[in-house]
Amino acid sequence: MTASSNLSVNGQRLWDSLMEMATIGATDRGGCNRQALTDLDRDGRDLFVRWCREAGCSIDVDAMGNIFARRPGRNPDLPPVLTGSHLDTQPTGGKFDGVYGVLAGLEVLRSLNDAGVETEAPLEVAVWTNEEGARFSPAMIGSGVWSGEFELDYAYSREDKDGRKFGDELARIGYRGETPARARPLTAAFEVHIEQGPILEQEQKQIGVLNGVQGMHWYDLTLTGQPCHAGPSPMTGRRDPFMGLHRILEQLYRLAESHGPWARVTFGDIRVEPGSRNTVPESLTLAVDLRHPEQPVLDAMDRSFREIAAAAADEARLEHSIRDEWRSPAVAFAPQCVAAVRESVAELGYSNMEMFSGAGHDSVYISRVAPTSMIFVPCEKGLSHNEAENAEPADLEAGANVLLHAMLKMAAST
Amino acid sequence: MTASSNLSVNGQRLWDSLMEMATIGATDRGGCNRQALTDLDRDGRDLFVRWCREAGCSIDVDAMGNIFARRPGRNPDLPPVLTGSHLDTQPTGGKFDGVYGVLAGLEVLRSLNDAGVETEAPLEVAVWTNEEGARFSPAMIGSGVWSGEFELDYAYSREDKDGRKFGDELARIGYRGETPARARPLTAAFEVHIEQGPILEQEQKQIGVLNGVQGMHWYDLTLTGQPCHAGPSPMTGRRDPFMGLHRILEQLYRLAESHGPWARVTFGDIRVEPGSRNTVPESLTLAVDLRHPEQPVLDAMDRSFREIAAAAADEARLEHSIRDEWRSPAVAFAPQCVAAVRESVAELGYSNMEMFSGAGHDSVYISRVAPTSMIFVPCEKGLSHNEAENAEPADLEAGANVLLHAMLKMAAST
Repeated sequence: MTASSNLSVNGQRLWDSLMEMATIGATDRGGCNRQALTDLDRDGRDLFVRWCREAGCSIDVDAMGNIFARRPGRNPDLPPVLTGSHLDTQPTGGKFDGVYGVLAGLEVLRSLNDAGVETEAPLEVAVWTNEEGARFSPAMIGSGVWSGEFELDYAYSREDKDGRKFGDELARIGYRGETPARARPLTAAFEVHIEQGPILEQEQKQIGVLNGVQGMHWYDLTLTGQPCHAGPSPMTGRRDPFMGLHRILEQLYRLAESHGPWARVTFGDIRVEPGSRNTVPESLTLAVDLRHPEQPVLDAMDRSFREIAAAAADEARLEHSIRDEWRSPAVAFAPQCVAAVRESVAELGYSNMEMFSGAGHDSVYISRVAPTSMIFVPCEKGLSHNEAENAEPADLEAGANVLLHAMLKMAAST
Repeated sequence: MTASSNLSVNGQRLWDSLMEMATIGATDRGGCNRQALTDLDRDGRDLFVRWCREAGCSIDVDAMGNIFARRPGRNPDLPPVLTGSHLDTQPTGGKFDGVYGVLAGLEVLRSLNDAGVETEAPLEVAVWTNEEGARFSPAMIGSGVWSGEFELDYAYSREDKDGRKFGDELARIGYRGETPARARPLTAAFEVHIEQGPILEQEQKQIGVLNGVQGMHWYDLTLTGQPCHAGPSPMTGRRDPFMGLHRILEQLYRLAESHGPWARVTFGDIRVEPGSRNTVPESLTLAVDLRHPEQPVLDAMDRSFREIAAAAADEARLEHSIRDEWRSPAVAFAPQCVAAVRESVAELGYSNMEMFSGAGHDSVYISRVAPTSMIFVPCEKGLSHNEAENAEPADLEAGANVLLHAMLKMAAST
């Protein structure tokens, strides 16, 4: 398939499609509000389906409303090479998060049609239902059911804040399909997405070659001492939770540093009891978020965190407890998929860097059942989940070109 | 008056008086709830006035409800030597806070009567209105108006949480007197009080010879950075308020250490915005309480605090602001009064230490208009403003003996 290495997508057509899709649920401030299983979501899906049919695709909708647009291959027995993302948005979302991955997939198919290129394996573009989780919790439930993370009944029973059920709303908009929502063999799966972070922009790179997704551990750390009056109580006798806190903060920041540029340590919240200005607090509770793309490193960070907390609490004569709030294991993408992206970027000559996703995507679930990887393009100031979300047309085109060539490599090499 | 050096109070009578007063507003858990200007406060005052009259005192009540029980001296032209404290309690208060100072004063007069001792200067026992500030804010308003800190109209206009006015409630319980509530000359003023802190107990000393009262500065320190997602945002690019916080905490604890055993640094409260587990906070606000008994040292701590905050904010690329919330200047007690206490303790042979008060007392205001000092006795586990507040009868007796001899020195030496 080296003959196809001169192929490229039509960047203007991709942009125009993005802008047309963005009119559905457009907000006054230039963003989109097209939440899952609303009438607007249906309108967006309908537009996508029409475009796909016009591009010669067959359409299949599964019981979760996941849409699969298929372009046949020469060998119908080969598992398809799939790409996809989502069309739903946050209530104050942008024009690119998710949508870009879907329409870049469509643009890949259109470009292949234009060039009259056939592939060995079929190609598919997927729209995964309710990635955002804004209307129905949890997020990524369409890809989640498909890959076996959640049961269909569980998904159908989820309610929005007005008490409307996911299953009912899915049927109401006409997207509750007959096909079972369960994984089938894929040759490969790709997802192209805006970064939703500042790294590519800061590093002035056009393409992020994703190696995986950060694992995340969430904790509540509680330090308990003894409340006492700020005046009469000598400093040396105090059992003051803040005396443990500053050591823990400092050492956890050092821990992040020691585990290199991809380790993350975040303290998003803190509460003290009783919270009176002239009383040494009895206790404080700190929200701790540890992340690393390699699970063994994240596990080592977990152990260090526990040691640091225990030692600092001891030193300050405090009790401490750690509550495990949530864990999302690190994801390593399939080497052959990462390699296909890496080689495509190299052939196309785009500036690039190897990186990890810090946020969840449908590809996290897909990767459990199929060889998967992702491609990132920069977004302005790293801003996402925001009506001001923006991306450069040239970057969006570059990302679609990388997707095109990575899909071709996987679809032809079998 | 060296003839009187064998004089001592009747510890049993003092204890019995304390226990009888404690029946007025007694709580199920062994404490007292006798808030200012309630019927119970009136009952307590009435009991005190009756006891004083029985001890041969004249009674004067001023416009703030402050009560002055006077035992004449040989020379009525000499300004009196006064002692006193308060009879009101916290809603869940104890049997000793304030009450001990009042009844120790009464016991001094009774003991002098028993021994037939006359003094040159008159002696007075004062009950100051609404020291606690629990029902009517601010605290110490009776001594505050008397010493010129507050206006009488301001005091009268204060409302409790049910909207009842201080002035009306004072009249209602029959303690709005005719005498102007303003300072008159005093030879000396003393106040004996439970420590409300753990130092004497820890140091196993029976008497605290007070040199003054800690000055206090209260601040709100706000650190402002930039909120960002815990996943995609590299550590090095973050403007994370917690990165400034840990440096500030550490350096302020060191600052306290560098200013010796009487410096206090307390962080009683902290709030972050937006307080979301997986978002680096935009800002945090820390309540800072700095104390030292010497004003020049406290001023130096104030300057260091500002420097530390500015440098740490700079280093972490944060904005910062410091709001001055409240200041109470350090009080140095009158050397002649401190000396009278010190000499009395030495003569009586009680174990003792020189110390400062970490909490406010009526004596803070009195000291602005008269030579003043205080005497502390231990309280169990430093507990106060608590129904479990407790003190040893032997310590209470010792404190009253010190008060007796300090008053005699000042009343006779003129």
